[in-house]
Amino acid sequence: MNPKKSKGLKITKRTEDYSRWYQDVIRGASLADESGVRGCMVMRPEGFGIWENMKQALDAMIKETGHSNAYFPLFVPVSYLGKEAEHIAGFAKECAVVTHHRLKVNDSTQEIEIDPDSELGEPLIVRPTSEALIWSIYRKWIQSYRDLPILLNQWANVCRWELRPRPFLRTTEFIWQEGHTAHATAEEAEEEARKMLNVYKTFIEDYLAIPVFVGRKTENEKFPGAEHTYTLETMTQDKRAIQLGTSHNLGTVFSKAFDVTYLSSDGDQKHPFATSWGVSTRLIGALIMVHSDDKGFVCPPRLAPLQVVGVPIYRSETQREEVLSQFKQIEARFNRQKAFSFKIDDRENLSPGFKFNDLELKGVPLRLELGPRDLESETAILVRRDTGEKIKVKQIELESEIIKLMDDIQANLFNRAKEFQSQHVYSVSSYEEFKQSIEDQPGFYVAYFEGTCQDEEKIQEETKATGRCIPFSLNPISVEEQETGKCFYTGKPTKQRVIFSRAY
Amino acid sequence: MNPKKSKGLKITKRTEDYSRWYQDVIRGASLADESGVRGCMVMRPEGFGIWENMKQALDAMIKETGHSNAYFPLFVPVSYLGKEAEHIAGFAKECAVVTHHRLKVNDSTQEIEIDPDSELGEPLIVRPTSEALIWSIYRKWIQSYRDLPILLNQWANVCRWELRPRPFLRTTEFIWQEGHTAHATAEEAEEEARKMLNVYKTFIEDYLAIPVFVGRKTENEKFPGAEHTYTLETMTQDKRAIQLGTSHNLGTVFSKAFDVTYLSSDGDQKHPFATSWGVSTRLIGALIMVHSDDKGFVCPPRLAPLQVVGVPIYRSETQREEVLSQFKQIEARFNRQKAFSFKIDDRENLSPGFKFNDLELKGVPLRLELGPRDLESETAILVRRDTGEKIKVKQIELESEIIKLMDDIQANLFNRAKEFQSQHVYSVSSYEEFKQSIEDQPGFYVAYFEGTCQDEEKIQEETKATGRCIPFSLNPISVEEQETGKCFYTGKPTKQRVIFSRAY
Repeated sequence: MNPKKSKGLKITKRTEDYSRWYQDVIRGASLADESGVRGCMVMRPEGFGIWENMKQALDAMIKETGHSNAYFPLFVPVSYLGKEAEHIAGFAKECAVVTHHRLKVNDSTQEIEIDPDSELGEPLIVRPTSEALIWSIYRKWIQSYRDLPILLNQWANVCRWELRPRPFLRTTEFIWQEGHTAHATAEEAEEEARKMLNVYKTFIEDYLAIPVFVGRKTENEKFPGAEHTYTLETMTQDKRAIQLGTSHNLGTVFSKAFDVTYLSSDGDQKHPFATSWGVSTRLIGALIMVHSDDKGFVCPPRLAPLQVVGVPIYRSETQREEVLSQFKQIEARFNRQKAFSFKIDDRENLSPGFKFNDLELKGVPLRLELGPRDLESETAILVRRDTGEKIKVKQIELESEIIKLMDDIQANLFNRAKEFQSQHVYSVSSYEEFKQSIEDQPGFYVAYFEGTCQDEEKIQEETKATGRCIPFSLNPISVEEQETGKCFYTGKPTKQRVIFSRAY
Repeated sequence: MNPKKSKGLKITKRTEDYSRWYQDVIRGASLADESGVRGCMVMRPEGFGIWENMKQALDAMIKETGHSNAYFPLFVPVSYLGKEAEHIAGFAKECAVVTHHRLKVNDSTQEIEIDPDSELGEPLIVRPTSEALIWSIYRKWIQSYRDLPILLNQWANVCRWELRPRPFLRTTEFIWQEGHTAHATAEEAEEEARKMLNVYKTFIEDYLAIPVFVGRKTENEKFPGAEHTYTLETMTQDKRAIQLGTSHNLGTVFSKAFDVTYLSSDGDQKHPFATSWGVSTRLIGALIMVHSDDKGFVCPPRLAPLQVVGVPIYRSETQREEVLSQFKQIEARFNRQKAFSFKIDDRENLSPGFKFNDLELKGVPLRLELGPRDLESETAILVRRDTGEKIKVKQIELESEIIKLMDDIQANLFNRAKEFQSQHVYSVSSYEEFKQSIEDQPGFYVAYFEGTCQDEEKIQEETKATGRCIPFSLNPISVEEQETGKCFYTGKPTKQRVIFSRAY
């Protein structure tokens, strides 16, 4: 909270210690803080403001595609998890288990302790995801084909006990949205899962300025119980993969587990088909991993809570008053148009240099400098956060220039990340070559692959790399277009090409 | 989901069984459903849509008054509760306690069970409110007077184990917003607590159309540990009180408990002053309790997810086509203006009468009927949900008439509730009289009161009534204006007048 505090903060260079750089960026931009509760972080206003902007944009897209928001309980009775064998194996492992409902003060020690009389008949877990709970409720809501489709979404917190937490990327509690839909036919469910994958792709490319590989997950990496899991993956600056979101075609696995049937228009009892899809606050971690630099956080203009900050330059008190007075007029003009968010950094006793550094740490997309000489020439200086470029602008043209520059920055961030990504995608045909290459030259490795889950696990064990996705772009739907290759691991002939990489 | 299902639904009359009427209204409007998880409900899209509208309006007001949103963890270590004695007594009693972090499959029975090896060193509780956790973090953030004030809010789920849950009014898990601020002086904290009380008053009166009594809580009813608790109370149709929100001046109780100090501008170490304030999904319960009727839910237009629904009237297929075609043109006109939300109820095989009933159950503020005769006369019928009044309108004047009617309905709901409330506020000067009166004639009883917490508990035991608030309106700040009376319970002379009532 004290601006002075960031003065001493030095961001570790990415080349020096990438992991420490990531932590420094978060601290420098006040995005999050440790909470004192194991594995849980605090999202500070600067970080939460980005999530609010993400939520607003994505929520509108989810509603435009016909979905409504609802809210389901936080707690899931343990017995629900037993209904779907794969699901429990995937999720029941590390979760928060509620066993009692009362504390009391110990009469002799005066310490607070659990009241043993309050033990629950059945333990509850804090939802790690809500398929089981929601399908136990859909059972009541789905009787006839007229009740379908159900197209619901919820914005919620979930909990997966993390042994090695990392802010935004992997925390015990995190916030996300989870869509849960029910359909009469397998085709509709497949269409829905693909549709939401595309909604995510548009959202992530347009708002986060992050280029993605979209595709299907391999057997070993798909959601426990799913028919297909679709995924969006991008590359971090240390050339690992980061999963940004997933969309699952769950088939009838949950409707069967929870005994949900509907009377079809033909008069038959049938199991409905399910999808689920989600993105989380992990996306903020991805913004850092993809766009930020050695000066600190870089935020795409479309998500920045504060898009432009004005820094007054002055030596004397007279100059200060003149510059601030002109700045206030410019601010009033901006506020009338409301085309972007703007604030003057009028903190006293802080040098312009300190403020420049602070705004760079915080990732404000554009800085507007105004000094005594600008008053005479009726100009101002705009400084881009992404490139550091300084642009002299006539004051009367500020609005149009700022709007143009914000579009430029948004596009530049995307293109820069795309360029970087494409430079580190390699083809590999032999596993031996891959084992060495992934060590020497991290990146995305495209390989023909036709192996089992055991093969994937073995590869992970030996190389720390996993099958990230079977990308649509490299696996054309028209089979004629696909060339047949030889699986780099098993040697079997296959048309399937998979991206392997180390991942967060 | 199946529209047919609501056909059979009959709403119990308020006079017959008020409690059952409340449940029937919720079911009839699909606001919520039981979840199968004890004490927790599902908020269906119809109910959650109202909460989304409340949140949007209130969030803007919270931000306009200088607050930002953040997010703090769901879990609170049990030891934190011990730091503030009153706080633990008030909140630690009934809460969800997390004791383990892993489940496993029992090798012999194949049942899922808690892994005993995963017991936590210190149990966590699911937050019942976040003062303790947030002040443990403010300790890091507050060092100097420059760090103050901190003006944060969070939208979050909380959990208080409820033995007798009632949807919206009292559920084990509920959603709310909780503001937590820190200030350099006692005066600032008091000003903040009052300011947020006024924000709530404006929000509740303007959006929920609910008139409120605002005032201070009595000693016995205030927040555990608070200096003052301010409250907003209204009257239900069965003439009980319902608390709509609270704002607490917490003084230095949490800064002392968590050892938070700041360096003042004078160079002294001082404890900062705290406030907290919250409203919850309970407000949806209040909408039912205050406005709804024997036909079902009544929603104030400013909060209704769907404000106007069109019902086509026809006998033949030709008529159907003609009416629908004209309706679609009207809809296109409405959609261009976007002054209100509108949908045509074009469900086939359902009679207009069924649809009227269904829209009344759901609380849609205005119904727009269009039939063959209206096509000729270029008119349409608007039907108000609040009064049932039918208004013939020229089709070209529909927009302006709808906007006017929605304002009228919003105002009428407020005035109707205000009138009802004022009819059931009584003065009482003797406790004996009160004991009898509250039985025969439920309502709000204003009495001079100067008793202890024990007195209040005794009154509650004997009459089931509690001190709801010390209303500002009956307790003018200027002492000269206040008359002195005799406490109705202790006989002591006092200037303090308190509203007693049974409450939800």
